[in-house]
Amino acid sequence: MTKRDYIIRQIAKTNKKNYENYVVTRIYHMLNRTDIKFVTQQYVNRPEGHALTDMYFPQIQLHIEIDEPFHNKQVDLDIDRETDIIQATDHHISRIEITEDLDSINNQIANLILEITAKIEILEKKKEWESWDLDKEFNPNYYREKGYLDVEERPAFRKIVDACNCLGQNYISVQQAWFKSKVYPNHNLWFPKFYENEEWDNQISKDGKVITEKCKNPDKYEEWFKAVTSNLVKRITFPRSIDNLGFRLYRFAGIFETDLNSSSLENGVIHRLKETRIEIEKENAR
Amino acid sequence: MTKRDYIIRQIAKTNKKNYENYVVTRIYHMLNRTDIKFVTQQYVNRPEGHALTDMYFPQIQLHIEIDEPFHNKQVDLDIDRETDIIQATDHHISRIEITEDLDSINNQIANLILEITAKIEILEKKKEWESWDLDKEFNPNYYREKGYLDVEERPAFRKIVDACNCLGQNYISVQQAWFKSKVYPNHNLWFPKFYENEEWDNQISKDGKVITEKCKNPDKYEEWFKAVTSNLVKRITFPRSIDNLGFRLYRFAGIFETDLNSSSLENGVIHRLKETRIEIEKENAR
Repeated sequence: MTKRDYIIRQIAKTNKKNYENYVVTRIYHMLNRTDIKFVTQQYVNRPEGHALTDMYFPQIQLHIEIDEPFHNKQVDLDIDRETDIIQATDHHISRIEITEDLDSINNQIANLILEITAKIEILEKKKEWESWDLDKEFNPNYYREKGYLDVEERPAFRKIVDACNCLGQNYISVQQAWFKSKVYPNHNLWFPKFYENEEWDNQISKDGKVITEKCKNPDKYEEWFKAVTSNLVKRITFPRSIDNLGFRLYRFAGIFETDLNSSSLENGVIHRLKETRIEIEKENAR
Repeated sequence: MTKRDYIIRQIAKTNKKNYENYVVTRIYHMLNRTDIKFVTQQYVNRPEGHALTDMYFPQIQLHIEIDEPFHNKQVDLDIDRETDIIQATDHHISRIEITEDLDSINNQIANLILEITAKIEILEKKKEWESWDLDKEFNPNYYREKGYLDVEERPAFRKIVDACNCLGQNYISVQQAWFKSKVYPNHNLWFPKFYENEEWDNQISKDGKVITEKCKNPDKYEEWFKAVTSNLVKRITFPRSIDNLGFRLYRFAGIFETDLNSSSLENGVIHRLKETRIEIEKENAR
């Protein structure tokens, strides 16, 4: 995908919502820079539950919400569990209010542009601004160079094999979702589905900190439970999801450890988030 | 309707065409002025037939066409005859080519913005620039103040009664489409439908210069033909149409005179465009 196709597709997601389309295109065009990435209709986790923000700038962790009068934006709480949902605890939210007067909307957007530009300048001064580069996104070599994965930066891969090789597995192709790490002692790489499927009913809590794992096959359940709870490994976890353009994604969710006290045959196996960052040793290049 | 609603609706017409939406919003937002009007998907008459331009700036008579590769923009020749179609003989057309590279599209648009701004500056210097004012559009008093209607400026009214009163008829409401002028001797005001309906099959030529009028009732046809061709009047003509947002419109098409040589029972009555401008005497205020 080119930047052109990415931008066009993101804007297209607003195409049935006329005010949203106006505001999103105005913000993007007035910013007038191709080094900034945006996502329209990004699901985020909030203390009060899932929410959907109208425009999200991941490089500056800024969300835009477009408030239309008489337009109640209640988000369907029953969203598809395969949807990519990001943690947005420290993110800032700016609001654009749709008023009767076009000049007022345009002025709000002009102020927002100043705000965004200032945020970028601060990052540039701190040498922390990273230009949007399609070749880096989802690229295992980029993260190997960088030397770590951090949940806060929302790293993600398009394929399981890319995540594996980023962490030193050296595979050509894979067919599974569970791997013993060749690099990190007593760690496994895990690519769970957090939506019910034939074999598993796994869930992650809204804050991304607790995973509940349940095998659905009653004939295998007890045997599986005993194996998992007696053979403890740390889980480098990449939940499988679908991004807002419909593409497959494995986004790093952190390293989880099994909590034996909370786990039971009834509740399933409980894993808790222990580390939000993993270092990558460059010597283990693929 | 407010400017906000007008702009939002015009942009909404591009909302299923992703490249069009990108280009139209970028041009509009980068221009960044609320005194310029635009129309998306405007039908125009060309020597080779009807065409549809993607974005039209009436104040500077400029049309934008967005050329997408592999996207054949053949216009349906069989368009609704009620559609508002403008004469665009002297209008300029600028093209934006959709290329693979976003920067190239953006550069073309940046050049177009310079072109548009230059055109406006020339008009401003000549004191011929007229800021877009929703209160003036379709307003009979505005045209009375101005002192004329000219086809080239595409004046139009929302209601028959407005056009009538602009030309000194002093009506409160009307139910018909044919009026003897109180001001212009031997002139009638005419609001024809150029699409087939129960009583009439009237047509106007693509260049807007020839009207063919036919009564559809066979019992009345000969009597009507004799009356029309023996009692000649000049016709101040406002064809009924629907604009691109779906609103009723009566756009001044000029003053027509009957051509007896071309008229026949077989062909119908032929009227030819004689004047593209009519002066309004201010003394005859409503």
